[in-house]
Amino acid sequence: MELIDALNWRYAAKKMNGQTVPAEKVDTILEAIRLSASSVGIQPYKVIVVESHELRGKIHEQACPQPQIVEGSHVLIFASWTAVEADDVDQYMQLIADTRNTDVASLTPFADSIKGALLGRTPEARAEWAARQSYIALGTGLIAAAAEGVDATPMEGFNADALDQLLDLPAKGLHSTSILVLGYRDEEKDYLAKAPKVRRSKEDLFIELA
Amino acid sequence: MELIDALNWRYAAKKMNGQTVPAEKVDTILEAIRLSASSVGIQPYKVIVVESHELRGKIHEQACPQPQIVEGSHVLIFASWTAVEADDVDQYMQLIADTRNTDVASLTPFADSIKGALLGRTPEARAEWAARQSYIALGTGLIAAAAEGVDATPMEGFNADALDQLLDLPAKGLHSTSILVLGYRDEEKDYLAKAPKVRRSKEDLFIELA
Repeated sequence: MELIDALNWRYAAKKMNGQTVPAEKVDTILEAIRLSASSVGIQPYKVIVVESHELRGKIHEQACPQPQIVEGSHVLIFASWTAVEADDVDQYMQLIADTRNTDVASLTPFADSIKGALLGRTPEARAEWAARQSYIALGTGLIAAAAEGVDATPMEGFNADALDQLLDLPAKGLHSTSILVLGYRDEEKDYLAKAPKVRRSKEDLFIELA
Repeated sequence: MELIDALNWRYAAKKMNGQTVPAEKVDTILEAIRLSASSVGIQPYKVIVVESHELRGKIHEQACPQPQIVEGSHVLIFASWTAVEADDVDQYMQLIADTRNTDVASLTPFADSIKGALLGRTPEARAEWAARQSYIALGTGLIAAAAEGVDATPMEGFNADALDQLLDLPAKGLHSTSILVLGYRDEEKDYLAKAPKVRRSKEDLFIELA
């Protein structure tokens, strides 16, 4: 599907019909997320993929009462790093060196510039920086879903602390920032399925400066 | 271009060649940004579009020394709301009512749920929530650019306060969160133009929970 058509087709489905999204489509959506841009390319988050009905039932009960959690097919949880340290930058440099078959020492100036920009900030500001990056990945995931004709409902309205506990995220140095439920809209029961899309006008959203 | 191909093709060009991006392509990229998802759909940001060489020169001098600012074609500045108040929610309800031709009073429960979720937070937390939404739009913009064969370099490494002052953003209730430069890569001079893309492996990025 053309991107603009896909963006017009998509909406945050409020009711889903329980149909399973084929593994091949889920893989494409995850691959798009994996290729997402992020600040300096470091991808300071993980994405938890939950298909199990049982675990989705627990998420629904304990952290997120929205029905799509159980009516959908897969639940993706975007969870950003709670700490960003020099070690994380060094490990990322090693990944670059391995991928590009270069000497990691040649990356020292790049590593130093990242450390200079990030490590002077408070731990809270670093965590917030990581959280923002996860929103680029969230946005990429929902566009990729639309391009595959898969509905995707992004959510912030959940109990993040309860979800973190349920999935043991604090022990992994992670905190959930958003959820993306993949599935298929229930056209009959979702009152929004046929509602016109609401977006600000060009005149309202953009400021063109000459 | 297929989405996965577009995501593989794109990278954050470090050197651009000065070529102008046709207005038609810019319009498509802006339309994709306009259609971006955001929490409850409120789009709590604006996007400043700068084509003028002169103004880009000032941005380069005063706020962002990265060369793409002047080597590119258009500079998009994502600037999120610095305050989120009940009035903003009410105005958004009016937009929904106008778009869907419904009575705004019927949206009171939706308005109340948004106000309940947002207005209990500190002003700083609300501004941060708005800033996060702008990253979904940033991500949408860079995918849309790639789909059009246009290079797009996202940037956080600029002096946001200086940029805000230059563009008079505080008076508009806005704070710049990121920049997206549209243009064309300089394949000869950009050492990254042919470098393999670095991304975390599936095994590293995703946690599959059964």
